Amino acid sequence: MRILLSALLVAVGISPASAQGDIPAPASKLSRAEAVNGYMQPAIPRPEQEAAAAQKLAAFEERTGRKPNILLFIIDDMGWGDPGVYGGGGMIGAATPEIDRLAQEGLMLTSTYAQYTCTPTRAAVYTGRLPARTGLIRPILAGDDVKTNPWEGELSVAGLLSDAGYHTMLVGKWHVGEGEGMRPHDVGFDEFYGFYRAQKEYTQEVYPQRYPDLVLDEDKLERYRGIGADRDLVYGLKDGTTEVVEVIDSMEKMAEGDVMLREYTIERLGELAGGDKPFFLSHSFMKVHADNFPAEAFVGASASKYPFRDSVVEVDAHIGAIVARLEELGELENTFIFVTSDNGPQMDSWPDSGYTPFRGAKGTTWEGGVRVPGIAYWKGMIEPGRRSDGLFDLMDLFNTSLTLGGVSTDALPDDRYYDGIDQTSFLLLDDGKSRREHVYNWLGDQLAAMRMREYKAHLLVSLAQEKFLWIDMATVVPTGLAPWLFNLYVDPKEEYPVGHRMNAWTASLGAELKAHGATFRKFPPKDLGL
Amino acid sequence: MRILLSALLVAVGISPASAQGDIPAPASKLSRAEAVNGYMQPAIPRPEQEAAAAQKLAAFEERTGRKPNILLFIIDDMGWGDPGVYGGGGMIGAATPEIDRLAQEGLMLTSTYAQYTCTPTRAAVYTGRLPARTGLIRPILAGDDVKTNPWEGELSVAGLLSDAGYHTMLVGKWHVGEGEGMRPHDVGFDEFYGFYRAQKEYTQEVYPQRYPDLVLDEDKLERYRGIGADRDLVYGLKDGTTEVVEVIDSMEKMAEGDVMLREYTIERLGELAGGDKPFFLSHSFMKVHADNFPAEAFVGASASKYPFRDSVVEVDAHIGAIVARLEELGELENTFIFVTSDNGPQMDSWPDSGYTPFRGAKGTTWEGGVRVPGIAYWKGMIEPGRRSDGLFDLMDLFNTSLTLGGVSTDALPDDRYYDGIDQTSFLLLDDGKSRREHVYNWLGDQLAAMRMREYKAHLLVSLAQEKFLWIDMATVVPTGLAPWLFNLYVDPKEEYPVGHRMNAWTASLGAELKAHGATFRKFPPKDLGL
Repeated sequence: MRILLSALLVAVGISPASAQGDIPAPASKLSRAEAVNGYMQPAIPRPEQEAAAAQKLAAFEERTGRKPNILLFIIDDMGWGDPGVYGGGGMIGAATPEIDRLAQEGLMLTSTYAQYTCTPTRAAVYTGRLPARTGLIRPILAGDDVKTNPWEGELSVAGLLSDAGYHTMLVGKWHVGEGEGMRPHDVGFDEFYGFYRAQKEYTQEVYPQRYPDLVLDEDKLERYRGIGADRDLVYGLKDGTTEVVEVIDSMEKMAEGDVMLREYTIERLGELAGGDKPFFLSHSFMKVHADNFPAEAFVGASASKYPFRDSVVEVDAHIGAIVARLEELGELENTFIFVTSDNGPQMDSWPDSGYTPFRGAKGTTWEGGVRVPGIAYWKGMIEPGRRSDGLFDLMDLFNTSLTLGGVSTDALPDDRYYDGIDQTSFLLLDDGKSRREHVYNWLGDQLAAMRMREYKAHLLVSLAQEKFLWIDMATVVPTGLAPWLFNLYVDPKEEYPVGHRMNAWTASLGAELKAHGATFRKFPPKDLGL
Repeated sequence: MRILLSALLVAVGISPASAQGDIPAPASKLSRAEAVNGYMQPAIPRPEQEAAAAQKLAAFEERTGRKPNILLFIIDDMGWGDPGVYGGGGMIGAATPEIDRLAQEGLMLTSTYAQYTCTPTRAAVYTGRLPARTGLIRPILAGDDVKTNPWEGELSVAGLLSDAGYHTMLVGKWHVGEGEGMRPHDVGFDEFYGFYRAQKEYTQEVYPQRYPDLVLDEDKLERYRGIGADRDLVYGLKDGTTEVVEVIDSMEKMAEGDVMLREYTIERLGELAGGDKPFFLSHSFMKVHADNFPAEAFVGASASKYPFRDSVVEVDAHIGAIVARLEELGELENTFIFVTSDNGPQMDSWPDSGYTPFRGAKGTTWEGGVRVPGIAYWKGMIEPGRRSDGLFDLMDLFNTSLTLGGVSTDALPDDRYYDGIDQTSFLLLDDGKSRREHVYNWLGDQLAAMRMREYKAHLLVSLAQEKFLWIDMATVVPTGLAPWLFNLYVDPKEEYPVGHRMNAWTASLGAELKAHGATFRKFPPKDLGL
């Protein structure tokens, strides 16, 4: 575990020597003091807003006699700019009318942050903790040799809500470990129907045009499968039931993956509607992760006619179908919906890949890598037409879901640090404001950047050719003496650094970063021996 | 006049020799044949759509007993990405709720094109002809020595509509010539209240912090004023009346410029409402052209607090106020509204300047320079929530306005070429499609690029440091042997050329470009001796 604190401190103009002593007393910032002293990421205090949201939620429960359903749509590798409402859509030949409608009839967030890749993001959403703390930095395959199961001792939002009376389901992609004890139905989901891995990991062994060195080399293929790489669409239950529904052994089958997921969700919604339990459902698409083969019904469905763009249209249609089903079932007004992506666009198939107007892509902590669409929709509970640039970290879905489900975060064990923030009041109130002041961007186990209000400070940057980069830590360098600080309001593409080592603002950001670092000293992260 | 046809032909794989002969017979393209033979830019034939639109318009006239008002909001130097609905807004610290609302309750166009700078765009909108034909490439100052007034013999949309019974007004910026015979009230506008020039041309002589070499040098300042640079807010009438309303001799006065324009428009709307004449009003903002000083009421009004961003918020509020006034007066349902900008962002004050996700900026024919917001709004006549990536050239406002005003373009003299296309049916019908297949991007008197469907072919590109470029023809080079062809759907930022000299698609685009070039041989452009 390297937090690279010395680089950090040099970058912000504080000598490493002084950093060894006590954390300097916070000036006027209550939240910074809390960060150092507490076990939960401090939220901007908004007591009136909090009270009003609690009242609104209580009124919902009184009116309906129940807790709300929670439905997360997690799209894979979709860029911030892909949906029409974010500037893409029809402009890039792939209209997204269903996502656009949810945004326009709900709350469209313009500063939602994921982690820099898939596994860390999903781990963060489900645990409410930074992957650097839990060790859930990369997917652990069945055959991996790890000292400790990183899920051990972790509490998932699914498990906590299940204990509180929810039916909790993951339909779709998991990618946070596939060994026993790490599967969705091992870590809190009552029900799992989906895939352990990312789409490419299924296609690469059946796609000779693109991966001839693997597909056409029997030895290599055998070794690849030997590391525990399964090819299954899996059905699993909390009681241990684990069945293979289908073996994905062709591009054609993978192409229909998201259709199968949609059908399953639609069928189960019908069974769950009107039942005695609310549901927590993470509908996690396989698309639009490479390699994208649109389902047969969507081939050529986009104006662009390219496979990635067709796949965007497909995902959009699935969202529309699931939301329409909820409406038919009379459950739409009982369901909090959040639409997002797990990271920025992956450049595997660029330029037929995700679109972001920002610098960088998946695998980096530039805005292009971590800033994602974020849409909160709840008919009758979130005012249509809202837009906000308030900060939202996908980890906040952990705390927010717990609050919606009536689980008090005060009851969580205090032997670990929680990074999520309860954003219920931000999302539900007509004039709600974000309670988050900082977003920390980690690259694996290294703190790389921080967004604070409209500023973004980098401690580590990727200098690889940004377009084709996936994750290439060899190209990541500390920013050192010259702080890489950007004002994202005037310079959203992070082109023109405004930081100077000695200016007050840089020093202030440095203090915020130090406070974050201190939480890792107080609660040392797991060492998984990875 | 150089069309650089030889570079063009080399670029598209056709030898200059063969180009000297006849234009090859068009294959199956009716429109190409028409381009060669006719005097009007051919439109994609959509007879049913045309008939339905004519019917819809006739029903409006029958219902109201009148022709519709036409209101163009032309914002200066606003980037494609600046409004919230185009991906900017609150994301860049300058929310635009009024523009967003018009887009969401109207038709939001994602492929609207301007010329590469201010004067050519305005000339094109008002004449429906490419500036390379009319000579209206740059503003002609009162003291300029020109052989011919380029406006001579030109027909403006304002003049044609005035003759057809409209009251035609320009409120705000003109910038298409300020000598006698070239002013708005000389060339068809019944009424003018505004400024002959761009905002910077007023501020630069009173802004010592930024222009010390001019402001603090008396000789230079005298010479500058000697070339006829006025400092006046002018009131003019078609009868020749020309009065100075106010001398703009301070930054503080310029800051209030758009407030004065808004007040004038609001006052005049009250007087015109319910009268016997419909109006054609081009409300042309001075903002957000450099130098931006927000009006006092808008200082700090943006989340970003920067002057450009505050000015965006100001312009948005003025649009909201004028639209609200129309609604109060009961004229909103009688008024076709179009919101746009005259070119991409100017980088004078970058990064506190306009925002585009695209490559390049004002002064180039990269998408960043010529692609602008385009929103058509007409309560009750344009279905809310429409979005289209259909091509729209701001010149199309010439033909479209004439159609809305009942002026048949068939009656226009056929001694010249018209580049605009009547897009009434595209804009008014719920499922309307664009009738434009090509957009030609000119750099002054040189053809530089063409957009056709999702493709963009460059014949000339600017290789200057794209961010800080204004107009630097010295950095413009022909693309020569390797066609610079981009697929804007998969590569909206024009980073990855897909053209190859010998492929069929490139040759086909080449034929389209040749057909365009042929219209200049058939109708030679004016030679103004500039």
